[in-house]
Amino acid sequence: MKFAILFGGNSYEHEISIVSAVVLKKVLSEEALFIFCDEEREFYLIEASNLNAKTFSSKAYKKEKKLILKQGGFYIKNFLKENKLEAKCVINLIHGRDGEDGKIAALFEFFGINFIGPRLEASVLSFNKELTKLYAKSVGVKTLKYSILRKGANSQFTPTFPCILKPVRLGSSIGISVAKNEEEFNYGKDVGFEFDDTLLVEEFKKDIKEYNLAGCMVGDELIFSIIEEPKKKEFLDFEQKYLSFSGHNELIEADLNDELKIKLKEAFSKIYNPLFKGALIRCDFFIFENEVYLNEINPNPGSLANYLFKDFNTTLNQLAKSVKNEAKIKINYSFLHSINGQKGKL
Amino acid sequence: MKFAILFGGNSYEHEISIVSAVVLKKVLSEEALFIFCDEEREFYLIEASNLNAKTFSSKAYKKEKKLILKQGGFYIKNFLKENKLEAKCVINLIHGRDGEDGKIAALFEFFGINFIGPRLEASVLSFNKELTKLYAKSVGVKTLKYSILRKGANSQFTPTFPCILKPVRLGSSIGISVAKNEEEFNYGKDVGFEFDDTLLVEEFKKDIKEYNLAGCMVGDELIFSIIEEPKKKEFLDFEQKYLSFSGHNELIEADLNDELKIKLKEAFSKIYNPLFKGALIRCDFFIFENEVYLNEINPNPGSLANYLFKDFNTTLNQLAKSVKNEAKIKINYSFLHSINGQKGKL
Repeated sequence: MKFAILFGGNSYEHEISIVSAVVLKKVLSEEALFIFCDEEREFYLIEASNLNAKTFSSKAYKKEKKLILKQGGFYIKNFLKENKLEAKCVINLIHGRDGEDGKIAALFEFFGINFIGPRLEASVLSFNKELTKLYAKSVGVKTLKYSILRKGANSQFTPTFPCILKPVRLGSSIGISVAKNEEEFNYGKDVGFEFDDTLLVEEFKKDIKEYNLAGCMVGDELIFSIIEEPKKKEFLDFEQKYLSFSGHNELIEADLNDELKIKLKEAFSKIYNPLFKGALIRCDFFIFENEVYLNEINPNPGSLANYLFKDFNTTLNQLAKSVKNEAKIKINYSFLHSINGQKGKL
Repeated sequence: MKFAILFGGNSYEHEISIVSAVVLKKVLSEEALFIFCDEEREFYLIEASNLNAKTFSSKAYKKEKKLILKQGGFYIKNFLKENKLEAKCVINLIHGRDGEDGKIAALFEFFGINFIGPRLEASVLSFNKELTKLYAKSVGVKTLKYSILRKGANSQFTPTFPCILKPVRLGSSIGISVAKNEEEFNYGKDVGFEFDDTLLVEEFKKDIKEYNLAGCMVGDELIFSIIEEPKKKEFLDFEQKYLSFSGHNELIEADLNDELKIKLKEAFSKIYNPLFKGALIRCDFFIFENEVYLNEINPNPGSLANYLFKDFNTTLNQLAKSVKNEAKIKINYSFLHSINGQKGKL
């Protein structure tokens, strides 16, 4: 299947998405097309041979072919006509805003484009960490206790230390702080409010074990990746987290007993099905006193978490074949006909 | 301010949205532009003089000027160039899917268009009645007890009668049934599952009082409409509900004591602020034993609930002036520069 990889976006993770695309190009068994969304949200078709950091940082991408998004697909504009880009399925690889907040899902659903990635509701529920908490609870998956801080609200909040502050709408550890005392807490609040008007505060458990599990649904079956225990310091910063999927870090398969592995897969399944159908997601879990807690959902994980799958290319092609578009609603105007017949007022 | 009214959409409420636009045209004190989104999701600029039922039911709208949506606005395509449509603010008046599920919000945020209507998160949380329940609870507003039925799931659910079945993602009473016994319940389930894969079941309280309150935020102040007690039979069907905003029904201002009026406004405020900033919404509440319960949120109410406001045109203009677009993120490529500098691998 001919894939097109969409990357970039007006997002704090714009550059990470470029890294993601470069890595995915090396991993895919078939040639793909590369669609770049620049910071102005214009689309460009990038020649595979030009898919390197300099093309973007030097803005040389502006010399590549511009694409227009409209009903049915992306189009290349030529002098007198527009040619449709031939891709069977677009992989949404924009991280953070635009790609994971629901904008790309909405655009693709509206314009009838076949894609791999979270749908609209799934995007909104996973992008906002407060909504993720509500959603996880509603499907019976535990999360750590939390409080919400709103910018400008006069809160009587007294944190327990150490705690972790997270902007609710950002991934990749951006704007996140760990606070061990009041002073660090106030500083962390200022940092967090630079990025978002809402912060989530959780108890910071230093020795908590973290496990990542990716997967996607093909037909009625969930295909799981291996379970990874990510290397970590206090918490992973932007650069560390993303170098991990560009092949610079060694992968550690988690040493867990079968009971806990099953618990992780059950929790993943509750989160995934049916909300995330059409997407390959990675869930990051904690295990604490033999209980599984959801930390966060990555609906467009770095390079699609390819390094966690035994046969990534087969899984991706199966997923692409099982992706379903929203059904169109047929409008028959019977209501307008009936009003006109009765009252002649419209 | 020059408004453009966007209506239509690929929605079960497509025709209702046309009625909404016709009504709003009569109400607005200044001439507006009318942008129609047809069932194929193509945009047309409709001449005000052609804004009547027949233009749409006969498909004569296809002779009107076609519009292209791209960065910065809607454009009229002429032979050699494209002219930008001159509107300061677009009013999203698409009801149901596309308009209220987040697609239009996403398109407008992505393409940088100034608009009145719910933003992405607000759309998703109000469009899905199950998510509305979770959201209301999180901001401290009561709702009636409910259960969720999922298509194909083997549920052990035993309803209490009478109950009401609602598809979670549809407005305007479409697909809703009241069931007084097992047989009606099974029939109602079949009807509901025609429209959605998830149904919400609530106890049906026959004599419960219903009150509608609309409003919007201008600066730091919430502007409220009057409180309406809608006329009703068992429940309003599609046609009844919408004839109400086209001026065929008489408006009843609710006869309520001050305490309950304040309670309704407090509940509205908790729901609205800050999630619905930028929108003029109508909340439908129940009052039962002196307690306020949220029934549903209409983020694009019929004809913007203009008939509930004392000075609708002033409110609308104030709202338009206080609408804020999402801030753009500046990309400086420092991360890519740093990777290249260190490792030269991308």
